[in-house]
Amino acid sequence: MLVGTAGFAAAEITLSGSAVMGVGDNGTDTVSKMETYLTFSASGESDSGISFGMEQTIATYSTAGGLNDDGTSVYISGAFGKLSMGSVAEADEVATLSDIGGIGGLGVDNVAEAFSGDSAGRQTHDVNYSYSAGDFSIAASTRIGATGNGDSYAVGAKYTFGEMYVGLGYNDDNATPVVAGTVTSLYAGGTAGAVSVAAMYSSWDADSGAEADAWGVTTSYTAGALTLSAAYSDNDLVADAAFGVGAAYDLGGGASVVGGVADLGVDTVWEAGVSLSF
Amino acid sequence: MLVGTAGFAAAEITLSGSAVMGVGDNGTDTVSKMETYLTFSASGESDSGISFGMEQTIATYSTAGGLNDDGTSVYISGAFGKLSMGSVAEADEVATLSDIGGIGGLGVDNVAEAFSGDSAGRQTHDVNYSYSAGDFSIAASTRIGATGNGDSYAVGAKYTFGEMYVGLGYNDDNATPVVAGTVTSLYAGGTAGAVSVAAMYSSWDADSGAEADAWGVTTSYTAGALTLSAAYSDNDLVADAAFGVGAAYDLGGGASVVGGVADLGVDTVWEAGVSLSF
Amino acid sequence: MLVGTAGFAAAEITLSGSAVMGVGDNGTDTVSKMETYLTFSASGESDSGISFGMEQTIATYSTAGGLNDDGTSVYISGAFGKLSMGSVAEADEVATLSDIGGIGGLGVDNVAEAFSGDSAGRQTHDVNYSYSAGDFSIAASTRIGATGNGDSYAVGAKYTFGEMYVGLGYNDDNATPVVAGTVTSLYAGGTAGAVSVAAMYSSWDADSGAEADAWGVTTSYTAGALTLSAAYSDNDLVADAAFGVGAAYDLGGGASVVGGVADLGVDTVWEAGVSLSF
Repeated sequence: MLVGTAGFAAAEITLSGSAVMGVGDNGTDTVSKMETYLTFSASGESDSGISFGMEQTIATYSTAGGLNDDGTSVYISGAFGKLSMGSVAEADEVATLSDIGGIGGLGVDNVAEAFSGDSAGRQTHDVNYSYSAGDFSIAASTRIGATGNGDSYAVGAKYTFGEMYVGLGYNDDNATPVVAGTVTSLYAGGTAGAVSVAAMYSSWDADSGAEADAWGVTTSYTAGALTLSAAYSDNDLVADAAFGVGAAYDLGGGASVVGGVADLGVDTVWEAGVSLSF
Repeated sequence: MLVGTAGFAAAEITLSGSAVMGVGDNGTDTVSKMETYLTFSASGESDSGISFGMEQTIATYSTAGGLNDDGTSVYISGAFGKLSMGSVAEADEVATLSDIGGIGGLGVDNVAEAFSGDSAGRQTHDVNYSYSAGDFSIAASTRIGATGNGDSYAVGAKYTFGEMYVGLGYNDDNATPVVAGTVTSLYAGGTAGAVSVAAMYSSWDADSGAEADAWGVTTSYTAGALTLSAAYSDNDLVADAAFGVGAAYDLGGGASVVGGVADLGVDTVWEAGVSLSF
Repeated sequence: MLVGTAGFAAAEITLSGSAVMGVGDNGTDTVSKMETYLTFSASGESDSGISFGMEQTIATYSTAGGLNDDGTSVYISGAFGKLSMGSVAEADEVATLSDIGGIGGLGVDNVAEAFSGDSAGRQTHDVNYSYSAGDFSIAASTRIGATGNGDSYAVGAKYTFGEMYVGLGYNDDNATPVVAGTVTSLYAGGTAGAVSVAAMYSSWDADSGAEADAWGVTTSYTAGALTLSAAYSDNDLVADAAFGVGAAYDLGGGASVVGGVADLGVDTVWEAGVSLSF
């Protein structure tokens, strides 16, 4: 992490990074795994105390390298809440699930998140507004310029009590005949001592009359430097549920040894290596 | 803006940035607007006092992100002037006009700049030499390796007196049969108290015998934190002139609220949002 | 070079850069030459003293700009040696030859390196392990996931005595029928006062029964700020040997004037300009 002061009174640009490397099996072949992330975070404050900023992450997703925009967004925030544009969360993604593996991720969570947010076939939103009042937070998001049948918007709410939370998300997407419809998602989770749990349940009601549900739970247990995790996900459109277990051992200084194995219904996949933060 | 000291005695790399976000109408649809810019400026000095450096800007041009090279150049400068390569200005662009809007720009200035610099169909130059002596500055640019009929070069001169300037540019481009010919451009402008004005006039004499002129003027008035601006542009190849008005309100700390509306002859377009500097 | 302290005890991200600009002749045309490099180096250390890091270089290769990944790698290192993934050296590239020119390089060295490393048609490795014990170092590299006929691996060893070295590399590549086979490379070189020499010899034994050798030598002489260099390369598949001479004059502060001329057998090429480091 690299921090500099700025020409403007309250502005600064921070540079931070992370990387993973290791090996895995994608169900067919043994493969190398490597990802790198460099994040530029710029922020400032107006005379009246409005915060603003931008964030951009340059990433590579494999040992073959390449420069990818892993998310660029701009925001302003203040007493009125926070307004973001660019690579923003769909507001119904109130609390996403963690994945298993720690390198590139094995994809167990994807089965539970198959209908919510910008999952396959649904529109990616480019503006998000959120507001917090005490333990309660709400958000709304949409894609500006997606008109007529292509309209898409989402809302979400989250209530936090102590180290626990519950959430509700709603997404109405008319992007394509295939996925057009609404998705209602419920979230709950929290941390109690060494144990953390996160669960979600989504119900998709298609305009065509089709219906499908998706659900999943992840849990982790931390004992000293070791964290063990497990995940289970299923939805009505897959033949078999996905589940997996993982482990991470913190070496200190930003480095961890990580790994996991998962049964994705069709394939058994695994990955192991190191995860590094800068 | 982020500044670091260097391994070499006089070298440093500075990181600065800017971003805009808002909404607009492109004449057909309401659209989201977002652009981000991260600029790396490296500079150093030789033992004998020659300055040198490079500059690169990584940009995204929409809410969909993406990593774009918004300009990379390398230079050396000293008593002999400044020699730049890469993404350089064509030398006949002595003083370009400001655009209206403040987010992505509405394009009023493009109508006046339709023949000069690297406007449509003309070659982009990759080397620029400039020299200043007191209030007088001159520049020359070309594309190295564009040979024979494809030759292209430009020269420019600017004279500054107090807060006023006049300029003259000349561009000879043989890039394609369509635009081949010469462009002579006149520039004048300046600031008097709260008012700034910039004007230009270009005359294109095609090798084919065709002729066309382009002209435009922009003006702005600043009162405290508020700046109002107006622009008018026309050329012989468009049916109607383009004109527009804009406003910017400085919030301090590098943030401004900005917007504008323009009649581009064919369409009426507008944009509004925030402009941020880091 | 820009250095920041980090959130993690031992982590930091360093930013450094270099650039060249000039003109040259590619054997057919006079051409502009420009390259820029921005390198992000992140490093950290675990509680038990294991070093780790990532490095990414963003480059442009011409005056037309563009953002290219010029190499991204991740590593961990300690008493066990160094394990790298991503853009790594093939282990048989024990000591590559310098090129002539100093701007983009004229390619004299390529003729000697036509069979070793990831030369044309051979697989690029994505994992490299190296280990040093005193004056002796060894390395091994491969491409993970290149299975069956596509297997490729390399090993290398280097012995350093004073300012001299000798090395041996071996590469077994089954990437394609054309190049499938083994390459054995010998390296020797060193510095004695103002003179440096590097030489290599590679022997390719194709599975098809074909054989071809490649060899080359580069030398440089430094007197004060001036460095003169010469290179000679040949291999059994080219009609004529390649050779060239170059010069660099150090201006201090990270800047040098550089240039060279080479006969590549088919064409005579040259380049001249400035080389800058930040």
